[in-house]
Amino acid sequence: MPLIQYLSRIRFDWGAIDFLPEEIRRLGIHSPLLVSDSGIAAAGLVERLIDAAKPYRPVLYLDTVENPTEACLRECLQIWAGRGCDGIIALGGGSCLDLAKAVALVTSHDGEFASYDIQMGNSSAIGRVTPHIAIPTAAGTGAEIGRACVLKLSTGRKSAAVNLNLVADTVICDPQLTMTLPPRLTAATGIDALSHGLEAAISSSPNPPAKAIALDCVRRAGTWLLAAYENGSDKQARWEMMMAALMGGMCLQKGLGAAHAMATPLEEKGHHHGTLIGVLLPHAVRFNAASASAELGEIARLLSAGKEAEDLARWLSTLVEAVGLPTRLAELGFESGEFPRIASRSAESHLNLTNPRSAGPGDYLELLTAAL
Amino acid sequence: MPLIQYLSRIRFDWGAIDFLPEEIRRLGIHSPLLVSDSGIAAAGLVERLIDAAKPYRPVLYLDTVENPTEACLRECLQIWAGRGCDGIIALGGGSCLDLAKAVALVTSHDGEFASYDIQMGNSSAIGRVTPHIAIPTAAGTGAEIGRACVLKLSTGRKSAAVNLNLVADTVICDPQLTMTLPPRLTAATGIDALSHGLEAAISSSPNPPAKAIALDCVRRAGTWLLAAYENGSDKQARWEMMMAALMGGMCLQKGLGAAHAMATPLEEKGHHHGTLIGVLLPHAVRFNAASASAELGEIARLLSAGKEAEDLARWLSTLVEAVGLPTRLAELGFESGEFPRIASRSAESHLNLTNPRSAGPGDYLELLTAAL
Repeated sequence: MPLIQYLSRIRFDWGAIDFLPEEIRRLGIHSPLLVSDSGIAAAGLVERLIDAAKPYRPVLYLDTVENPTEACLRECLQIWAGRGCDGIIALGGGSCLDLAKAVALVTSHDGEFASYDIQMGNSSAIGRVTPHIAIPTAAGTGAEIGRACVLKLSTGRKSAAVNLNLVADTVICDPQLTMTLPPRLTAATGIDALSHGLEAAISSSPNPPAKAIALDCVRRAGTWLLAAYENGSDKQARWEMMMAALMGGMCLQKGLGAAHAMATPLEEKGHHHGTLIGVLLPHAVRFNAASASAELGEIARLLSAGKEAEDLARWLSTLVEAVGLPTRLAELGFESGEFPRIASRSAESHLNLTNPRSAGPGDYLELLTAAL
Repeated sequence: MPLIQYLSRIRFDWGAIDFLPEEIRRLGIHSPLLVSDSGIAAAGLVERLIDAAKPYRPVLYLDTVENPTEACLRECLQIWAGRGCDGIIALGGGSCLDLAKAVALVTSHDGEFASYDIQMGNSSAIGRVTPHIAIPTAAGTGAEIGRACVLKLSTGRKSAAVNLNLVADTVICDPQLTMTLPPRLTAATGIDALSHGLEAAISSSPNPPAKAIALDCVRRAGTWLLAAYENGSDKQARWEMMMAALMGGMCLQKGLGAAHAMATPLEEKGHHHGTLIGVLLPHAVRFNAASASAELGEIARLLSAGKEAEDLARWLSTLVEAVGLPTRLAELGFESGEFPRIASRSAESHLNLTNPRSAGPGDYLELLTAAL
């Protein structure tokens, strides 16, 4: 039974960040907390935001760490209380966007972040949260329009809160902010965007609007990633990749598949998500060839990659190599001895549920071995 | 500058209406007012809804008229107050959906409906409205996910309120409810759905997710309309047409074009919107051939209609004829003497702003004359 949900307000274009004061005003925010990190600041983007936000003067928190922690959240809350903040702006990648959602949740609800954990069945208690604006600085995850927020608790455990009320009130996508993204990150985040379109397009869950968006996402990312990688100041390539990433985020509601099911447990070693996806995706395409032949053939044709799943798989491997990413798990230091455990976890993942071809631990073991 | 907005929660499938109690509960409604009309009741659909809504017992208002009036609204408000209603369910076509929005607005805001008129600049004052659920019974306008609501005031003037807060909290699309739609209405509403996809796909406003949805909408409607018309109990055709109509509604944010700009003033004689669109659309396609040749060619190929705009225009005329609709304005009683006034109004319409080729009154006069 399709449940189709679109809930975002998105400003998208060159200079879209200049809409910031208008959006702050629209949300009734007087004193916004800016959640960002030192890398973003070093790239000059915090300065750009401060300039764009005038006459508003955001209070700065620039200490977000990758895979944000409960300690970061506590620091934000201290600043929040001390400076009388009443709204949030997130500027950065997935970590900053996630931390901002956690701040929005905890400043509007009683109790600790962990008391809204989805695994514990408590995320459904999340109501309207503090107004927040999401501004991505990479073209990849599509997290800017996501409903999930993951935090590493002081206990070491990761906790996820998932609720549509966590979707940002406004998303501002300004491709200008991605112009300084280094080639390697452009490549890895871009492959991630492409993979969202590809796995959503072939997923087993019926959602025609999301499928239409997914197919265009993969066409767009597949057409423009190499150009954005080779020349970071190619404006059209940056615009198209940011649009592909946004569309990739929009179609996530249709579900993903095998490549993402494997990437999650593999990521625990600290490798970049998009890098792992680049290795795994061609293998997932081959595995699904018979179960999604129409869609995979259509994607192959959209990318002028050929007519069939196998053509597409080969084309993807070539693209991954062309953008300087590894094509084998061995290059990332993996060994076959770790695979049985990872294969079991892949099969148990909720991401496996929407893979077009049913896959058990044995299938995942074969896929991982082929990708080694 | 693209502003991309998706705000709906949509339950879509056979038997989706059985989710009604769950959605009523989710919205915290205890006593829903059902806004519908006598035709819907005669088709047995009100009975079906009452059955699906259990244990909730909707209070019935079945006197909605086509182009709903302020008098209808007043009647609803009387029932609302007398029976202690706290939420709304709309069941029907555009008129019922619009009246329900008006009730949602006036029961949550001070003042008359007309004080939120968009032309007067007052629609922006609309905040959160009373929770409401929209359930379409035709596959056409896509109004179930719309943000606009038009009411005929006691003065005779039409007033429109337009605000994203007017979007229904939940949309339930159950193709079963369209199985009894008579062939002529299936045809006219279906052509309307197709035209939303077509005019949005070629509109001058940039919105890639809406464009992707629009292209799939026109492919879907073009592929399935004839089957739904010829055999109303063809389940797949009904599912596909309802999906096409929904997708047509979703892509409206990208803007429409010449066919809709002309249909609005022509409609004042009381002809069905979709019937007029069927006459006008092939002419609008020809007019836009050079300005949107890539998109029109793509649509022609998606429909196996040929390769170019002219092929598509001819294919559309054939389809309109095949589903028993008129192909000339003369068949509807129009005469060329009325056209100069209608051409001027078409050129002034906001729908003309996003037509891919700039069009003045002279162009519209030629188009109308060609369509006579």
